[in-house]
Amino acid sequence: MSLDRIFNAESVAIIGASKNETKRGYQAIRTLLDEKYEGKIYPVNPKAKSILGLKCYQSVMDIAEPVDVALVATPAITLPSVLADCGKKGVKGAVVLAGGFGEIGSEGRKLEDEMVAAAKKHKIRLIGPNTSGMLNLKDNLNLVGLKDAPRGDIALLTQSGNMALTLITEAKIKSRKGFSYYVGVGNEADIKFHEYLEFFRQDPDTRAILMYVEGMRDGREFLQQAQKTTLEKPIILLKSGRSATGMRSAGSHTGALAGISEVAKGAFQRAGIVVIEKSDELFPAAESLSSLPPIKNNKVAILADGGGHATIAADILTDLGIELPELSEKTQTRLKEILPAAASVPNPVDVAGGTDADPSVFADCAEILLKDPNVGGLLIVGLFGGYGIRFAESLALMEEDAAHRMGKLIKKRNKPIVLHSLYNFEKPHALDLLRYYNIPVYDSLDVSAKCIAVLAEYGSYLASYHTKIAFKLNWKAKAKPKANEIIQTALKEKRHTLLEHEGKKLFEIHGASVPRDCLVQSADEAVQYALDLGTDVALKIVSPDILHKSDAGGVRLKLGTEKEIRAAYRAIMKSSKKYDPKANIKGMLVSPMADEGVEVIVGTKYDDQFGPVIMYGLGGIMVEIIKDVAFRVLPISPTGARKMIAETKSYPILDGARGTPPLDRKALQRLLVLCSDIVESYPQIQEMDLNPVIVHQKGISIVDVRIILKSEDR
Amino acid sequence: MSLDRIFNAESVAIIGASKNETKRGYQAIRTLLDEKYEGKIYPVNPKAKSILGLKCYQSVMDIAEPVDVALVATPAITLPSVLADCGKKGVKGAVVLAGGFGEIGSEGRKLEDEMVAAAKKHKIRLIGPNTSGMLNLKDNLNLVGLKDAPRGDIALLTQSGNMALTLITEAKIKSRKGFSYYVGVGNEADIKFHEYLEFFRQDPDTRAILMYVEGMRDGREFLQQAQKTTLEKPIILLKSGRSATGMRSAGSHTGALAGISEVAKGAFQRAGIVVIEKSDELFPAAESLSSLPPIKNNKVAILADGGGHATIAADILTDLGIELPELSEKTQTRLKEILPAAASVPNPVDVAGGTDADPSVFADCAEILLKDPNVGGLLIVGLFGGYGIRFAESLALMEEDAAHRMGKLIKKRNKPIVLHSLYNFEKPHALDLLRYYNIPVYDSLDVSAKCIAVLAEYGSYLASYHTKIAFKLNWKAKAKPKANEIIQTALKEKRHTLLEHEGKKLFEIHGASVPRDCLVQSADEAVQYALDLGTDVALKIVSPDILHKSDAGGVRLKLGTEKEIRAAYRAIMKSSKKYDPKANIKGMLVSPMADEGVEVIVGTKYDDQFGPVIMYGLGGIMVEIIKDVAFRVLPISPTGARKMIAETKSYPILDGARGTPPLDRKALQRLLVLCSDIVESYPQIQEMDLNPVIVHQKGISIVDVRIILKSEDR
Repeated sequence: MSLDRIFNAESVAIIGASKNETKRGYQAIRTLLDEKYEGKIYPVNPKAKSILGLKCYQSVMDIAEPVDVALVATPAITLPSVLADCGKKGVKGAVVLAGGFGEIGSEGRKLEDEMVAAAKKHKIRLIGPNTSGMLNLKDNLNLVGLKDAPRGDIALLTQSGNMALTLITEAKIKSRKGFSYYVGVGNEADIKFHEYLEFFRQDPDTRAILMYVEGMRDGREFLQQAQKTTLEKPIILLKSGRSATGMRSAGSHTGALAGISEVAKGAFQRAGIVVIEKSDELFPAAESLSSLPPIKNNKVAILADGGGHATIAADILTDLGIELPELSEKTQTRLKEILPAAASVPNPVDVAGGTDADPSVFADCAEILLKDPNVGGLLIVGLFGGYGIRFAESLALMEEDAAHRMGKLIKKRNKPIVLHSLYNFEKPHALDLLRYYNIPVYDSLDVSAKCIAVLAEYGSYLASYHTKIAFKLNWKAKAKPKANEIIQTALKEKRHTLLEHEGKKLFEIHGASVPRDCLVQSADEAVQYALDLGTDVALKIVSPDILHKSDAGGVRLKLGTEKEIRAAYRAIMKSSKKYDPKANIKGMLVSPMADEGVEVIVGTKYDDQFGPVIMYGLGGIMVEIIKDVAFRVLPISPTGARKMIAETKSYPILDGARGTPPLDRKALQRLLVLCSDIVESYPQIQEMDLNPVIVHQKGISIVDVRIILKSEDR
Repeated sequence: MSLDRIFNAESVAIIGASKNETKRGYQAIRTLLDEKYEGKIYPVNPKAKSILGLKCYQSVMDIAEPVDVALVATPAITLPSVLADCGKKGVKGAVVLAGGFGEIGSEGRKLEDEMVAAAKKHKIRLIGPNTSGMLNLKDNLNLVGLKDAPRGDIALLTQSGNMALTLITEAKIKSRKGFSYYVGVGNEADIKFHEYLEFFRQDPDTRAILMYVEGMRDGREFLQQAQKTTLEKPIILLKSGRSATGMRSAGSHTGALAGISEVAKGAFQRAGIVVIEKSDELFPAAESLSSLPPIKNNKVAILADGGGHATIAADILTDLGIELPELSEKTQTRLKEILPAAASVPNPVDVAGGTDADPSVFADCAEILLKDPNVGGLLIVGLFGGYGIRFAESLALMEEDAAHRMGKLIKKRNKPIVLHSLYNFEKPHALDLLRYYNIPVYDSLDVSAKCIAVLAEYGSYLASYHTKIAFKLNWKAKAKPKANEIIQTALKEKRHTLLEHEGKKLFEIHGASVPRDCLVQSADEAVQYALDLGTDVALKIVSPDILHKSDAGGVRLKLGTEKEIRAAYRAIMKSSKKYDPKANIKGMLVSPMADEGVEVIVGTKYDDQFGPVIMYGLGGIMVEIIKDVAFRVLPISPTGARKMIAETKSYPILDGARGTPPLDRKALQRLLVLCSDIVESYPQIQEMDLNPVIVHQKGISIVDVRIILKSEDR
């Protein structure tokens, strides 16, 4: 169901309406009246006849006219019965303010589940619980109790009422921008982030979506919806709660969690989301992205009236990966014509006093700069807006002239300008004019540079977008009956781990070339198979009870002679039995020693928020000590696999950086895609660990495979 | 000479005084009069009789009374003669505003040198040139033309007039703080950063020093002075110009320069300087450090009235390396007594509405929190200051009460409080009260968290300071005549590179155990020496004309038999002669093959700003591909060497992380200190390259040494 009837409700029942001014059930009605909500308001309270001049109903069922939305201000425990009444009345949605649900633990979680079940039964969609409410500024449908929020084209979606207050306040006092909708998602008990996103994507009044997120119930659906959305309008997101989560968990888990946080960031970015890490930059980024055309070529010019600001801005942009291109000769010549001899006309451009007598020269420079095809956007830093204040009033008029011209220029060139001004706090008219033309103005160099940078980031995403990035899994699409059999056999034996040779077989069935291993039951068989192979071999114990074979002394390598093999067989058997006397030993695996090459590790696991993810890294110290690994939410395309390999720091090693011939990274790439396919084919797989895989000049060897199955199908 | 007579000048001559209101020579006098400078003002202009009511002098020499400082507003070209006049008059210092010196290239550099020579001759110290001037706020000695700068206890030292303007404006509009002095260092032609620093260190009116730096003439002297200074008062510094420099240089040099920028940052921090990277955080960090006691134990508590702000603040502090300790049971119990049941009392503390009816509860919480010995400082985030605005006016009075109590609390506990308030922009009286008590207030979560973090950073520095960190070189202190002879021999032969065996000898003379190499002149000698050694050997060409031996085919390894040695000798000779037919071949070095171990690289070089620096890294891919290296400004102590080794990511490899026995990092540490000693002993050494050094379980092997001498003694 579309959320339209909820967000654009024409009638609201206030369940738990009150005459007590300190109660939310009073304030909600007061706000709707004050803010001139255009729909109908029905207070519901069995004990009152009228509240604030409005007729009060005993029950929502007593209301004769249709009710779109119920704002529920009663305590958690009442919710199941309140929703039953609402269901009978045909209410479409409920905004549940109360806390005391999933966020307080298992008891609350139970109540939350009951509430959601009741809502499902009665076909009511829920916002919250534990939410500050929602706000539709177009219709003054204010269910938040927050007054004077500015109206505009940014949809605000947060998990913290305080952060909503912060962002709305910032919009009000520092910009000309405002909001189309606000919603506090609360516990996401029913309506999830991705559903809100879908609504905002389709909403014609929304040009950008601003999000503050602490955690998500269904990250994968969100990524899919985000990917669709960012092709149409930008999403700006700050994800917090890394360290809080880290603190809650034991110290040793912090690393793993930080890893997942990096996965989330990468996945958000691959879905085209602009991920912000500083809260100071959150609203400004949304302001810029909702107002200005993105930068197509990642190239920015800086225009300054002094050295220090330009130098700092250049540092920040370089750190953010933005190019500061040299200006064309033509551009430099034209700038020199209007600026004093001391001016610096490469990029950054320093006017060197050339604007002191007439600050409208800023507009002349901007016109020249944005005409340069090598310049995708312009960052102006320094004192613009302050000339009229510092020197003579007449200069203020020239600044206003410049503002008008620069404002029109962004439309003409379809390239953005962002401005930093030290005089922002003085609120000169020229700066307000710039904002009128959608040119954002900041008194922070850091923030203004970040804003031009996010315009480039979003533009680069749109320019390089191709449809192969996917966050959708098509379970069993590529499953094969023989592989299913292996999994089913294990599950029948109540095993949740495939044995090494089973895992390898599963890969072989899907077309991977795996070593010619053989499961043997005796030293004689081992010797015979080794002779057949004609190479040095490895012997490895095979037992569902021994997951960590090396720890049990269950692995011997580089065995060349019959004598070595027999000795190794005995030794492995002895130490394995010592390791676990009850171990069910299925035999030993005889494998040919792999050819030389570089060891890598490939693994997949399940993330609570994002489902299956894949990890890749160079083996040995690079994984263990340098933690040089790359993650992706599955599935991945061949391009995704290529980029994933390339983003590790150790990548040049595969490419022959040390004078050795380049290794077969295409085969490695194919393996990553195959892992993705396998996880997508068998929903029973919880985790896979290919460690090590050896990459040769031609081909790869999967030396060991561990596959863990889910305890129960999800 | 102390700069006292300049900074606290009792009389100023304005050279180039003017009646033209647009000229600096007019504005300077106007400003001194307007700002009520307490000393004497002498305009100097051969063409005027009086300016602004002051008698005007034809020449500075015509002034009868003593003149402390000359503000020189005349063009660059006049400076040598102006200084000659000033010298005759006995002027102590000159502030040279003009540009057109070193910053414009070689011609300007020549003029600058002339000016400095003239100043030296006449015993005049120079501020600038190319400076915005200087400012002593105590005496209203305003030689900047900038009005209304707030007076206070921060000394401001910058290389950009615009950044000075930015910081002064920020102080004026956002804080109750101000400045003791300001100086624009300009080109540092005469007075250098470290001299200003020394003056501010000794100045009783200065409690903190705020710096914006793009580049330094003498980084080493600065580090020495900084190290002394930070024991007495904090230095807060932003260094910019990384990317600008990078852009000016060719692309391939960027990496190297970025490395140097990291060296600078590390050296600043080791001298106790608080290095800031975001310009938004620069003034706030100085405000906090000049106002509040530092945090001694790196532990901070967060107090919030809502989830989102606390979560973000916790993330930021964790990223900055600040601990958020669990509160003691006693503290938690006491908090629970005054807060509602829903309040969260681990750290962060969320009052959960417990301040809504009475915001003075913030002070109660602060008192409990700062009493906890595990809490070193407090960050309060959220809505404090806004209770009177959001709810009822009476709450504003309770907030004011809380402000008074918290203000007194920081003195009582000698622990800092920093506050974030969403209502800062409304300027409630309670927040101004907090500032009166030196509690800084910010509307940015990022900035407020950074400020409590720098208080912890500075406190940790002071707590862990020990005198062994040094930036002073005591040339030739440990030099030995025999080693000097090696260097002199090379120089006599007009060589600027020591041959491998010379370099090794130099190390041996200083007590390093080097391989038992032998320089031979024939294959026979090589075989004989190898037989004497009784191990496999390496053969390496020795020639001052062949620096890169491997490139010339001049190295053969693992030679075991007489036949192998003779063949290698022939092959090396042949390919070396082919590589450079004119090469002066001194023979070949026969070295025993080193035992197994881990390869590392040690090198020293000269940095323009900081003098000799040392680099250390694990050899092979860790240096070449991962760039996992550590730098230090020399000299280093054994502790410094230990920390340097430990700060590389690959450090655990030396420590036996991969199941191997730990290697001899003490020997490696001694080698680093020895390199430091050698560089300190022989000023002729420009660069050293020990590559590779093999670290064994016991001891190390220096496999190759390259030492480059300076072209001329500096």
